[in-house]
Amino acid sequence: MTDAEQIIATAHRLADAARRETLGLFRSPSLRPDNKSLQGFDPVTEADRASERAMRALLDELRPEDAILGEEYGPKSGSSGLTWVLDPIDGTRAFMSGAPSWGVLIALCDDSGPRYGIIDQPYIGERFEGGFGRARMVGPRGETALGVRKGVALAQATLMSTYPEVGSPEEREAFGRVAKEVRLTRYGLDCYAYALLAAGQIDLVIEAGLQPYDVCAPIAVIEAAGGIVTDWQGGPAHQGGRILAAATPELHAEALQFLRS
Amino acid sequence: MTDAEQIIATAHRLADAARRETLGLFRSPSLRPDNKSLQGFDPVTEADRASERAMRALLDELRPEDAILGEEYGPKSGSSGLTWVLDPIDGTRAFMSGAPSWGVLIALCDDSGPRYGIIDQPYIGERFEGGFGRARMVGPRGETALGVRKGVALAQATLMSTYPEVGSPEEREAFGRVAKEVRLTRYGLDCYAYALLAAGQIDLVIEAGLQPYDVCAPIAVIEAAGGIVTDWQGGPAHQGGRILAAATPELHAEALQFLRS
Repeated sequence: MTDAEQIIATAHRLADAARRETLGLFRSPSLRPDNKSLQGFDPVTEADRASERAMRALLDELRPEDAILGEEYGPKSGSSGLTWVLDPIDGTRAFMSGAPSWGVLIALCDDSGPRYGIIDQPYIGERFEGGFGRARMVGPRGETALGVRKGVALAQATLMSTYPEVGSPEEREAFGRVAKEVRLTRYGLDCYAYALLAAGQIDLVIEAGLQPYDVCAPIAVIEAAGGIVTDWQGGPAHQGGRILAAATPELHAEALQFLRS
Repeated sequence: MTDAEQIIATAHRLADAARRETLGLFRSPSLRPDNKSLQGFDPVTEADRASERAMRALLDELRPEDAILGEEYGPKSGSSGLTWVLDPIDGTRAFMSGAPSWGVLIALCDDSGPRYGIIDQPYIGERFEGGFGRARMVGPRGETALGVRKGVALAQATLMSTYPEVGSPEEREAFGRVAKEVRLTRYGLDCYAYALLAAGQIDLVIEAGLQPYDVCAPIAVIEAAGGIVTDWQGGPAHQGGRILAAATPELHAEALQFLRS
């Protein structure tokens, strides 16, 4: 096996383990969200923690020299120059509401950013992956190639964001300038929105306040499908913050202009 | 077979037919939404029309004396005193975005309102049904009983609505008074939100501007699961308009007070 093949095989083992842990508690009456926030409500559940523990245990066994950055258990240093970036449940609010828009995010990054990523939706049984020459999804209807859709003008585009408030009032206002130009804006889908962009179903995702573990796997999947992900200045997005994901360079350039103006 | 058994068997045949028609076009490049609205964007697709035609053809054959009210092809009168209320795709915007929160809604009503209903999500393969003594869902993990969750105070509740704007500015303001009291508010799930309430995953759904075919099946499923659905005055909801669905009488009464004040 080449290193790329080993990385891909490892990522799928992580995703399989996370499926078991998350599905065991999804829609279970024993799920009791804790609040991580001192102001407001930032839920975390035993499903988040068990999912990340299972993935970290596998990495300790299979790839001990790689670093890890996970949402719930923080960073672990490594010596290989490679880092696994893990969000054991992206969309904990959806998870605790029974809505299947949450996902498990697994990315492998080097110094330049994400090289490979998986967005997994365990309940629907859908796995989107991209990187090392792969761009595909496996779901209830079998395997299909991922690819962004091309040729959609901004006035015909579909835009998604998880929260209607988006971020700060200024961020919301910038988002609103793009939303006014598109045909359809939808909310509430967490990481699933990025998967839909890679699958050619929607055209833009714009969010703010993201963490690296929220965005590294989506970047890998979307770039493998032919799309573009940057921050709101057009720079690298894998450190999180303000994210603009677009199906085509034309839509990316137009949306960037409205975000900035 | 009793009449209830015949109705249930017919409803499942309709749902099976609608699954075939909708899945054939879900995420298909040949899907081209038309706009039903002169102002704004109110999409309809060939999937909506084919799904309703397939259900109406089955009813013409199996239950010719029943009336029909469908979103795309309007009313057909009958002589039995029973009416099938059909939404071939509730959540066409989600459908055309590839998001599996749309559903097929099938209700059987008499003069007093919905007696039996199905909320079907073909892509996930989930079917929620309620009425004539049934309250259950069949999904990727098999069959489970439906039942609302009890004992959740308003301050701990999860509230859903499809659109952040909800309806008119006054309706948005009334919604906001309830949203301020709950722990978590989520948007974007169309009829799937009602299914999650019946499944004990969330506590409140509040919407405005609904049509009878948007709400008759959810009413049957939620009432069978032990929940309550009324308009914002506490009256019958099956004619559509402003909808308040609640898991318990206590939550219903509290939410009603905030909506009115």
